[in-house]
Amino acid sequence: MTKRFAMVIAVLLALVVSTSALAANGPFVGDPKEEYYMVTFVSGIEYWKGCFAGMEDAAKLLGVKAIYTGAPQADVNQQVTVLEQVIAKSPAGIAVTCANPDGLRAPIDKAIEAGIPVVTFDADSPLSKRYCYLGTGNYNAGAMAARYLAGLIGGKGEVAISTVTGQLNHEERKAGFVETLAREYPNVKVVATGNDNNDQTIAATLVAGFLQAHPHLSGIFCTDALGGVGAATSVREADKVGKVRIVSFDTDQGTLDLIQEGVIDASIAQGTWNMGYWSMLMLYSVRHDLVRPVEGWQTKGINPLPGVVDTGTNVVTKDNVDAFYVK
Amino acid sequence: MTKRFAMVIAVLLALVVSTSALAANGPFVGDPKEEYYMVTFVSGIEYWKGCFAGMEDAAKLLGVKAIYTGAPQADVNQQVTVLEQVIAKSPAGIAVTCANPDGLRAPIDKAIEAGIPVVTFDADSPLSKRYCYLGTGNYNAGAMAARYLAGLIGGKGEVAISTVTGQLNHEERKAGFVETLAREYPNVKVVATGNDNNDQTIAATLVAGFLQAHPHLSGIFCTDALGGVGAATSVREADKVGKVRIVSFDTDQGTLDLIQEGVIDASIAQGTWNMGYWSMLMLYSVRHDLVRPVEGWQTKGINPLPGVVDTGTNVVTKDNVDAFYVK
Repeated sequence: MTKRFAMVIAVLLALVVSTSALAANGPFVGDPKEEYYMVTFVSGIEYWKGCFAGMEDAAKLLGVKAIYTGAPQADVNQQVTVLEQVIAKSPAGIAVTCANPDGLRAPIDKAIEAGIPVVTFDADSPLSKRYCYLGTGNYNAGAMAARYLAGLIGGKGEVAISTVTGQLNHEERKAGFVETLAREYPNVKVVATGNDNNDQTIAATLVAGFLQAHPHLSGIFCTDALGGVGAATSVREADKVGKVRIVSFDTDQGTLDLIQEGVIDASIAQGTWNMGYWSMLMLYSVRHDLVRPVEGWQTKGINPLPGVVDTGTNVVTKDNVDAFYVK
Repeated sequence: MTKRFAMVIAVLLALVVSTSALAANGPFVGDPKEEYYMVTFVSGIEYWKGCFAGMEDAAKLLGVKAIYTGAPQADVNQQVTVLEQVIAKSPAGIAVTCANPDGLRAPIDKAIEAGIPVVTFDADSPLSKRYCYLGTGNYNAGAMAARYLAGLIGGKGEVAISTVTGQLNHEERKAGFVETLAREYPNVKVVATGNDNNDQTIAATLVAGFLQAHPHLSGIFCTDALGGVGAATSVREADKVGKVRIVSFDTDQGTLDLIQEGVIDASIAQGTWNMGYWSMLMLYSVRHDLVRPVEGWQTKGINPLPGVVDTGTNVVTKDNVDAFYVK
């Protein structure tokens, strides 16, 4: 090999190495060893899959690792233990949904104080030091249901509500529904409201009662998916499919199947994928020091991220239901 | 040159080219020719600089171009013209703050229908087809002011409000302030409320009146920056600095100077940098087809982004005021 050729090769090799380094060090190109955790409760349910899919998609785009874990039950002590174990690994960031707002506060604050970015999603711990909460604006979700159901019944008639009494997110959905009707559709009257306790059988009994007591009922809003499936059973048994319109909540398979069959008219889908995707981008942006709301935010008590993201809702109908089945 | 060396060089050259291409084609590495616009009204004011700084920072990280433009006055027709001109350039994305929610609706919808991603920031057009609104949750901002002022005066006493009557964001700040005090601080009474019309001189006269009518007044909340500066003048003239505590709004230089002097105790800073940074990341994520809330969202009436981002607020005090001066 002549000296000249050796030099050409050396220069080209250097170029390859430096170009690769440039690619690996771009601001949105992470280290494949960087680990971000999603921590849930009742960790086996279908609902979280959509959230984690968004987080995983973003992690792949960023070249980092997203890891799913959680407490098997809706048990706050169990979830605190899981979260403590995750914190002990000093991960690059944590997205956590809270079995209980107060119960999770101490470990969240501990993580933040240890320099681990934390956001909450789906269920918040508002008094904790988490940087952001990403979840459904439930009042707005109820308003969306009100407008859609009112449209289905021509802006007038009697409607009923099947809900989970005393649970904050369900109470907010109900309030958004009731208040939006009162403001925007004065000819739609809410004639009955009941507690289905997030149970399909109880909902079926409740709605059968509604149908008997209110023979002119033209619509039902169910604030939970199992309530919607129960309502569908009773409406079908009373032979009132198409006469009593149903707007339900969430996108589990039972609900989607009933939309395809035309028994449930619509359901309000939560932005689960968006919760995961934007949680991941936020955690990454803080971890890599990309966010600079003001200089020196870290030592001046300044929150680096937006406080709350309403991840939004969409109306699922026969026209778009196929897009919502989990692939 | 022997054939073998020529081949080695060819292989290395190919590696350089392909590695560069990889770097240029990473999901968060944009084309330097890609242009994203920020469109404002009263485009010369200081307030928008913070918003555009966030957008520009994000654009630099992504390797794309952020361009600032707007209507010189708070004139909706003028802003529509500017927005139409921007749309005619077929930009990669638009972040727009709306002089009027209804007036901007048609051009925003036109942009969306032309495949240009649009988000609104600071002032929304809620009935338009914009993908997301990023701005201050003004009710929460008022609640933050209430808690801070109540703390300053030891949880009891008389307070007054200087606000801009009839403007939605100011009415929301006032409501958040009044309702939070009523719920959480029953011993703090709002004894007077007035309209300063976003004018420093009117605010000074208004607050001088408050001080005369209510000799035991211990706190004032101003929902606009000029109101705060006016209030400071009157409190100083009445020789009540430190006796009547002032919590103001925003971070223009006059307010920051008065915080340093100890006349204004605190101000509520809006998350302007975050409005720009997250607008940019959202527009980029849609433009580059990175967001997949559901398959085929484009043709199924599904919004690709979270609906609303509350960019949050922070309390500015003597302790952290230096971080808020525009560098």
